[in-house]
Amino acid sequence: MPTHTVTLTNVAERLWLDEFSLAPADGPKLAGSSQWSIKKTTLRGGVTSGVDVIELDNGALSVAVLPTRGMGLWKGQYRGIPIGWKSPVTQPVNPCYVNLTDRSGLGWLVGFNEFVCRCGLASNGGPGNDVVLGNNGDPIETPLTLHGKIANTPAHRVDVSVSDEGPGVLSITGDVDETMLFGPCLRLSSTLKTEAGSNRLTIIDRVTNVSGQKGELELLYHTNLGPPFLEEGSRFIAPVADVAPTNAEAAKDIDTWPVYKAPTAGYIEQCYFFDLHADDAGETLVLLKNAKGDKGISLHFNRRQLPWFTIWKNTQAEADGYVTGLEPGTDFPNPKSFERKQGRVVELPPGAIYETRLEIAVHDTAAAVSTIEKQIQSLSRGRQPKVHRDPIAKYSPQ
Amino acid sequence: MPTHTVTLTNVAERLWLDEFSLAPADGPKLAGSSQWSIKKTTLRGGVTSGVDVIELDNGALSVAVLPTRGMGLWKGQYRGIPIGWKSPVTQPVNPCYVNLTDRSGLGWLVGFNEFVCRCGLASNGGPGNDVVLGNNGDPIETPLTLHGKIANTPAHRVDVSVSDEGPGVLSITGDVDETMLFGPCLRLSSTLKTEAGSNRLTIIDRVTNVSGQKGELELLYHTNLGPPFLEEGSRFIAPVADVAPTNAEAAKDIDTWPVYKAPTAGYIEQCYFFDLHADDAGETLVLLKNAKGDKGISLHFNRRQLPWFTIWKNTQAEADGYVTGLEPGTDFPNPKSFERKQGRVVELPPGAIYETRLEIAVHDTAAAVSTIEKQIQSLSRGRQPKVHRDPIAKYSPQ
Amino acid sequence: MPTHTVTLTNVAERLWLDEFSLAPADGPKLAGSSQWSIKKTTLRGGVTSGVDVIELDNGALSVAVLPTRGMGLWKGQYRGIPIGWKSPVTQPVNPCYVNLTDRSGLGWLVGFNEFVCRCGLASNGGPGNDVVLGNNGDPIETPLTLHGKIANTPAHRVDVSVSDEGPGVLSITGDVDETMLFGPCLRLSSTLKTEAGSNRLTIIDRVTNVSGQKGELELLYHTNLGPPFLEEGSRFIAPVADVAPTNAEAAKDIDTWPVYKAPTAGYIEQCYFFDLHADDAGETLVLLKNAKGDKGISLHFNRRQLPWFTIWKNTQAEADGYVTGLEPGTDFPNPKSFERKQGRVVELPPGAIYETRLEIAVHDTAAAVSTIEKQIQSLSRGRQPKVHRDPIAKYSPQ
Repeated sequence: MPTHTVTLTNVAERLWLDEFSLAPADGPKLAGSSQWSIKKTTLRGGVTSGVDVIELDNGALSVAVLPTRGMGLWKGQYRGIPIGWKSPVTQPVNPCYVNLTDRSGLGWLVGFNEFVCRCGLASNGGPGNDVVLGNNGDPIETPLTLHGKIANTPAHRVDVSVSDEGPGVLSITGDVDETMLFGPCLRLSSTLKTEAGSNRLTIIDRVTNVSGQKGELELLYHTNLGPPFLEEGSRFIAPVADVAPTNAEAAKDIDTWPVYKAPTAGYIEQCYFFDLHADDAGETLVLLKNAKGDKGISLHFNRRQLPWFTIWKNTQAEADGYVTGLEPGTDFPNPKSFERKQGRVVELPPGAIYETRLEIAVHDTAAAVSTIEKQIQSLSRGRQPKVHRDPIAKYSPQ
Repeated sequence: MPTHTVTLTNVAERLWLDEFSLAPADGPKLAGSSQWSIKKTTLRGGVTSGVDVIELDNGALSVAVLPTRGMGLWKGQYRGIPIGWKSPVTQPVNPCYVNLTDRSGLGWLVGFNEFVCRCGLASNGGPGNDVVLGNNGDPIETPLTLHGKIANTPAHRVDVSVSDEGPGVLSITGDVDETMLFGPCLRLSSTLKTEAGSNRLTIIDRVTNVSGQKGELELLYHTNLGPPFLEEGSRFIAPVADVAPTNAEAAKDIDTWPVYKAPTAGYIEQCYFFDLHADDAGETLVLLKNAKGDKGISLHFNRRQLPWFTIWKNTQAEADGYVTGLEPGTDFPNPKSFERKQGRVVELPPGAIYETRLEIAVHDTAAAVSTIEKQIQSLSRGRQPKVHRDPIAKYSPQ
Repeated sequence: MPTHTVTLTNVAERLWLDEFSLAPADGPKLAGSSQWSIKKTTLRGGVTSGVDVIELDNGALSVAVLPTRGMGLWKGQYRGIPIGWKSPVTQPVNPCYVNLTDRSGLGWLVGFNEFVCRCGLASNGGPGNDVVLGNNGDPIETPLTLHGKIANTPAHRVDVSVSDEGPGVLSITGDVDETMLFGPCLRLSSTLKTEAGSNRLTIIDRVTNVSGQKGELELLYHTNLGPPFLEEGSRFIAPVADVAPTNAEAAKDIDTWPVYKAPTAGYIEQCYFFDLHADDAGETLVLLKNAKGDKGISLHFNRRQLPWFTIWKNTQAEADGYVTGLEPGTDFPNPKSFERKQGRVVELPPGAIYETRLEIAVHDTAAAVSTIEKQIQSLSRGRQPKVHRDPIAKYSPQ
C-alpha cells in the first residue's frame, strides 16, 4: 500500500476537517506497531477556542501538535512517561488571545507552554529595537517582541500521512506563512515524522524566502522539559567546545552549569551559550538525563544548519514552571540587532530555502542513556570544554 | 433532589456545550418561582463571534453572564425594568477583537458595555507605567493598560447549578486564569447566585495566587447603571465617612456630589473616592435611587474585603453612554504604582486566596427604597460625612 | 416579484447563517443574466478562520466581499479576467490575528490583500501621533496606526438582496461599527450593488456619527489592481488639474508619473497626490488601462464627496505584490494631524451622515477603454495638468 495522505486544512482550496481520526482498523497495517493512531480535534472554550490539536501516536511515543500555534509540539508521552512541562499557562492558547507587545514585548509568555516551540522566523530572542525598512523604503526603528511571531501564527495547510514503508512512518506536514506587504515574507513548511513503535520524532523544517528580495531568518527550537527528565541532579551532557554564561546571574553558578537544582521558589533563570563539537558532517548530539541516569531525552541535529546552542535553566517552583530549555538555533536568543552584528543572522536570497532537521529521542533505560552519553563523548574526542566564567562579548550584549 | 449541576465548559477535560437550556420542565421544581430558566448560547457575527452568553432567570430577575468576557454581567432585567446601560459599543465584544494597548492604553473601552465588569486582577485603574520583573529578574518599566486584563479573558471552566434548597438557588461558576510565565499568576473562581423569585444577585469571587511566589491583586467591581435608575435628580446614598473629588473637574461639582444630572452632551466624567462606614463586621451598603425614589439598586459588601469605594458620574448624552459606575474595590482606580505607594494593593502569598462577596439588589417600590435608605442611615449613626472640596494626596495622584 | 432580501448576520437579533446560496433556480429570474448567484460561506483554517465571504456573481462580473474585514472587496473576475492583485498575504485574514500597532503602526499590512479596502473611519494614512481626548477630557498624545481600523472591524449586520427591477440588481448591505466609549463613534452602512450581466459595481457608503458630540471622518478607497490591468506600459488617465509627488522618491519619476513599470525587484513605492477636474455636478472619472489599451478599470465618483485622489505605484517584484492603488478619498493618506491642519478632515455633527458613491467598471475591449478616455478628456476640456516636480507644502508634510 502506498502512502496514505489526508488533508486536514487547506485554506486556498477551502478544505477543512473539524474532526479526523485514523487507526489500524481504517488504515494500513504497520510492522512497527499495531497501536498507532492519528486524531485531530478543534478545542473549544476559554483562550483555547479554535485551537486545532493533532495527536500522533506511534504505538509507543505520542505527541500533540498544534497547527494553530505554528505547528508547535504541545506535549507528548513515551510508554507512560510524560514529555513536556507544566507552565502556569495550562492549556494551548489561540494566538488571537496573545498580544505579543504586552508587558514590554514579553506577551509571547502568555501563550507559552509547549514541549517544542519554534522561535522565529524573522527574529527571535529577547525584545529589543531593530531598524527595518518601512513602506516607503525609509529605515524605521521598531520594537521586536520576544521570540518572534511563528509560534503564534496558524498553519494554512496541514496534511497527515501514514506509510507502511519499513516499520511504518506517521507524519504531519504543515505550512505557516509569516508574510506581510513591505515586511518579512517567510514560509515554514514543517514535517514531523515518527516510525511506528519507535522512541523518536524527527522535525524537518524548510523555510522559504517567498519575497522577491533578500530576507533574514532566525530560527531556534525552544525544546522544554520538566519532570521526570528534569529533577534535582539532572545533568545536561553535550560535546562542548565553548560554554559561556549569558549574564551575571548565570555566571554565579558557572561551576555547576551542567547540573540542575530542585524546584526553587524565586529562582532566577540562568542561561548558557554553547559552541558544540560535531562530526565531520556537522552532526551533533546533546542529552538531558535525570539524576539516576535511567531517563533521558536527546537532541540530534546538524551544526551546519543549527550552529549555536543555548540552555535555559529555569528551576523555579513547580507552580511557576519548573523547566529547562534545550535550544539549538541559527543564532543565540539575543535581540536581533546584536545577533546581526555578530554575523549570526541567516541571509536568504529571494526564493532560497533553509532546511533544518532535529531528531528528538526518548530514553527510558540506563543502558539507552549510557549509549547516548558514549556517542557524545566520542564527538568530544577527549577535548576539554572551554568554560568562560563570565559572559563574553561575542555571545552576549554588554 | 440534590443540586443539579451541568458543566458547560471545561477546557482541561475537553468538555463543551454549544447550546444548553434548563427550565422547570426538565429540572427541579423551585419553591420561589415556577418561571426560572438557564440558557446558554454562543453568539455569532461581528466582533461578537464566539462570545458565550448564559442567561439566568430566577423568575423575577434575569441576568446575562459572559464567560468569554471574564464572567462579566452584561445586562439584566427585574420585573420588566432593564438593568445596565447603553454603551456606544452595542454588543458583547470577543476579547480577540480588543487591543488593550490601543489609544494609549484605553483599548479596554472598545469592549466595555457591561452592567458589572471586573477590573483587575494584577492591576486596574487608569493606564500608567509600572515597574515589574522581566524574565531574567531585572526590573522593567512597562505600561499597564486601563482596568487590566480580567474582563477580556475567557473562562476555561463554567458550570451551572440549580438547587431546590429553600426557595431554590440558581448559580453559575466560572474559572478564569490570568497567568503567564514570569508574570502574575492569578485564578478567579467566580460564583454568581440568585434565589428563585428574588430581587437579588450575589457574586462570590475567590482569587487564588497560583504562583510559587508572592503576588499582587487589584480587584474592583465596575457596576454600571443607566436609566431608569439613573436620571436627572437620581441620588447616590451611602454611609460616607470621607468623600473627595478625584480631580479638578470633579471638584467643580463637589457641592452636588450625590446628585446626578440629565444627559448632557459634552459632559466630562466626574469621579469621587470614598471611605465608607460599616457595621462591626465590616458590612456596608450603598444605593442609587431615581429622582422619585421608587426605583433603586443597592450594593451590599464588606469593607474588609472591598475597603475603598468610587463613583463614576458619566452623565454624557445618551448616545455617548449615559451611565454611572458604583465601584467597590480593593483599591481606587488610579494607576497601580500610585495605589501601591498608598498601601492599597493586596499582597497575596503563594497559594493564598482572596475572597469577596458583592450582593446586588433591585428595588422597584418607594417602600423598598426607603428601607435601604434607613439601613444606610443606621450605618452612619448620625456621623456627618467629611467632604473634601479638593482632591487629597492620599487618594489622588498630584 | 419584489426585492428578495435575506439577512445573513444580525448580531442584535441573534441571526446568523453559516452557509447561504441563492441562484436563479431558487430566486427571481433576472433579465440581465440567467447565470447570477450569491453564495456565502465561512472560511476555516489558518488566519482565515472565521472570515465570512460573500461571492456575488452578476453573470458576467463577480466579486468576493468580506464582512469580517469591514465589507472589503477581496477580489473579482470579469468574463475570465481576474480583478485584484497578489499580495504576499495570500488569504483573507481575520482581524483577530492582526495587531495594528505591530511594526511601529504598520500592522495593517499583515492583513492587506484586498481589491477594494476602505481606509478610515476615524483616521487613515500613515502612522503618526495625534492628540485626542482621553476619558477625563484631557488631551493625550496617541499613535494612530496605518489606515485606521475599519478594514479590520467585522460587520454586525449583513443582508443580501435580489431585485428583478430592470436588468435585475444584486446587492449586499453591511453595517460596521467603529465605536468605543470616550472615542470615535462612527457607523458605516455600506451597500454594494451590481446589475445582472453588467460590467460594473457600485459602492454606496453612509457613515453616521452616532455620537452625541461632533466627530471626525477620514475615508479613502484603496482600490488595488495588478495584472492584467497593470503591466509594463500601463497608464493612469484622469482629468488632472494638479499633480504632485508625495516625496523625493516619487519626484524622481515625475516625468513618467502616468506610466507604469514592469515588476522591479527592490522598487520603492511612488505616490502622487491629485486635484481632479469634474463636471458641474462634481462627477469625475479616472482610468487604469493596460499597455495595449484593450483592458481597463475605471472609477467614477464625485469630488464633493471624495475631493482628493492619490495613486500608489508599487511595481515591486510579483512575489512582493506588484500593484497600483487608485485612491479617491476625503483626504490624502498622510498622518491625520497633518490633514487636519490642511482642512482635509471631515467634521461630522452629532447624528450627521456622510455619503459616498464609487462606481467601478471593467472594460475588456479597446473600444470600451477608448470611450472612457474620451469622457475623461471631455472633463479636462483641454486644460493642461499642472505638474509639480516636487512635493508641495499643502499636500505633503515637510
